[in-house]
Amino acid sequence: MVELPKHLEEVVEFFTKLPGVGEKTAFRQTLQLTNWRSEDLMAFSYALSQLTQLKKCQKCNVYTDTTVCNICASVERYEAKMLCVVETLTDFLAIEKSKNFRGTYFILGNVLNPLMGIGPDEIGLDKLFERITSENIQNLILAINPSVEGDATCSYIRHKLPQTIKVERIGFGVPMGGSLEYLDSLTISKALENRKSL
Amino acid sequence: MVELPKHLEEVVEFFTKLPGVGEKTAFRQTLQLTNWRSEDLMAFSYALSQLTQLKKCQKCNVYTDTTVCNICASVERYEAKMLCVVETLTDFLAIEKSKNFRGTYFILGNVLNPLMGIGPDEIGLDKLFERITSENIQNLILAINPSVEGDATCSYIRHKLPQTIKVERIGFGVPMGGSLEYLDSLTISKALENRKSL
Repeated sequence: MVELPKHLEEVVEFFTKLPGVGEKTAFRQTLQLTNWRSEDLMAFSYALSQLTQLKKCQKCNVYTDTTVCNICASVERYEAKMLCVVETLTDFLAIEKSKNFRGTYFILGNVLNPLMGIGPDEIGLDKLFERITSENIQNLILAINPSVEGDATCSYIRHKLPQTIKVERIGFGVPMGGSLEYLDSLTISKALENRKSL
Repeated sequence: MVELPKHLEEVVEFFTKLPGVGEKTAFRQTLQLTNWRSEDLMAFSYALSQLTQLKKCQKCNVYTDTTVCNICASVERYEAKMLCVVETLTDFLAIEKSKNFRGTYFILGNVLNPLMGIGPDEIGLDKLFERITSENIQNLILAINPSVEGDATCSYIRHKLPQTIKVERIGFGVPMGGSLEYLDSLTISKALENRKSL
């Protein structure tokens, strides 16, 4: 077999470590990179190296270039006194994209999972509770995905907060554009349970 | 919308420039990278920057760390006096993987395409002819993919070489494991044309 340059093989190997990239795709992507202009390649390399320096917003944990992200710094959002708790940055962005929430966020980074050694400290619940107190949050929305661990995390948070704070979890049911025919029984059960009078 | 760090956005943008990567995948991959250890991230970044320094084998054009690749340097392969012409590095690797060819290679990088301004000089045909003469190649195998341009390139090469050199093109027909039911008519016509007596 031909011996390809070490760095080429390395780039292929790193690509295969990314989600959804197999060996063939990695190779195709690497070959495409070899056709890029050196400036672009160097810029890509530099941007990548800078990912080691990423900072998180001190308040909500989102990646940001500033100490506090622009959402946490917004007076309008602060005054809404609503805080939305999400698992990941992508969940956060999905909600932000819906343009239907004008409060602040808190990214857990994970959900409680005792078997994996993820307890309240690992997901920074103390920081969350502290923020709820210091910013006098009135309404906490738990936008945590449905799973055994997600459900437990929600119960834990509800249990730890005084009853004066309204804690709500996002609604579950049939998704827009969804068809009952193709949905799983659990979703249908949830949709029946969450029915609303018209 | 939240302002994400500049470098994060940049990495996402670079990823979307790769084949088969959309915005969502790019974002997912970038987020995954943020979880990598810094050493790995720096190594990835460095390997990427080194792609600007890739060298090609002086004889066959494959990427290599040495002046001449290990296949071109092999005496056994040199003595076979067989040269296989391919379009791309991936085609080269596919043939090498089949372990059925023990001669040397020549990567064109492209096929003749006058409309796109790709003439004999652009794909280094002079270098190919020179090599055929200097290495006294007896058998040239054109492993060029079937297309109008590929066919023209094969005719051109055949036309430019003396009749004493055996020039052959790889066979076309039904692929192994293929089913006539799902094949296009062109492939079936080719398979009929290339029938062999048993």
